[in-house]
Amino acid sequence: MIAKVYVTLKKGVLDPQGKAVQHSLESIGYKEAEDVRIGKFIEIKLADIPKPDAEKKVKEMCEKLLANTVIENYRFEIL
Amino acid sequence: MIAKVYVTLKKGVLDPQGKAVQHSLESIGYKEAEDVRIGKFIEIKLADIPKPDAEKKVKEMCEKLLANTVIENYRFEIL
Repeated sequence: MIAKVYVTLKKGVLDPQGKAVQHSLESIGYKEAEDVRIGKFIEIKLADIPKPDAEKKVKEMCEKLLANTVIENYRFEIL
Repeated sequence: MIAKVYVTLKKGVLDPQGKAVQHSLESIGYKEAEDVRIGKFIEIKLADIPKPDAEKKVKEMCEKLLANTVIENYRFEIL
């Protein structure tokens, strides 16, 4: 079973890495990139446990370790 | 228009960051996380251009800047 977790900065939180990438894109000619935000994409290979348990566990993992919920949002899917 | 880009390490490429996260998860009791791979999730706000153009441009951005195609795969969607 695979969990895919997406961690993104909350709206309003500055993203200097994204800004740097946006400027780089602009400098190589991609002026249509108006804003860039960079987040994390985490793939977790899970042992075979029932899907509801997996959902509970992954939510806990996000809250405790994977995302800083003060400044980041997360969402995940279990496949 | 928003482009969502997912950049992941190719299979076989070592991911020390992922390993560190996996060990941290294990040490706080999540033994069901058997493997962790960490990639990037990039959101690009695009100027209003026709969708086929946007697809072409984003593909180019990935090849030229966002992904290192020697060790990384990318995929994207335009919304």
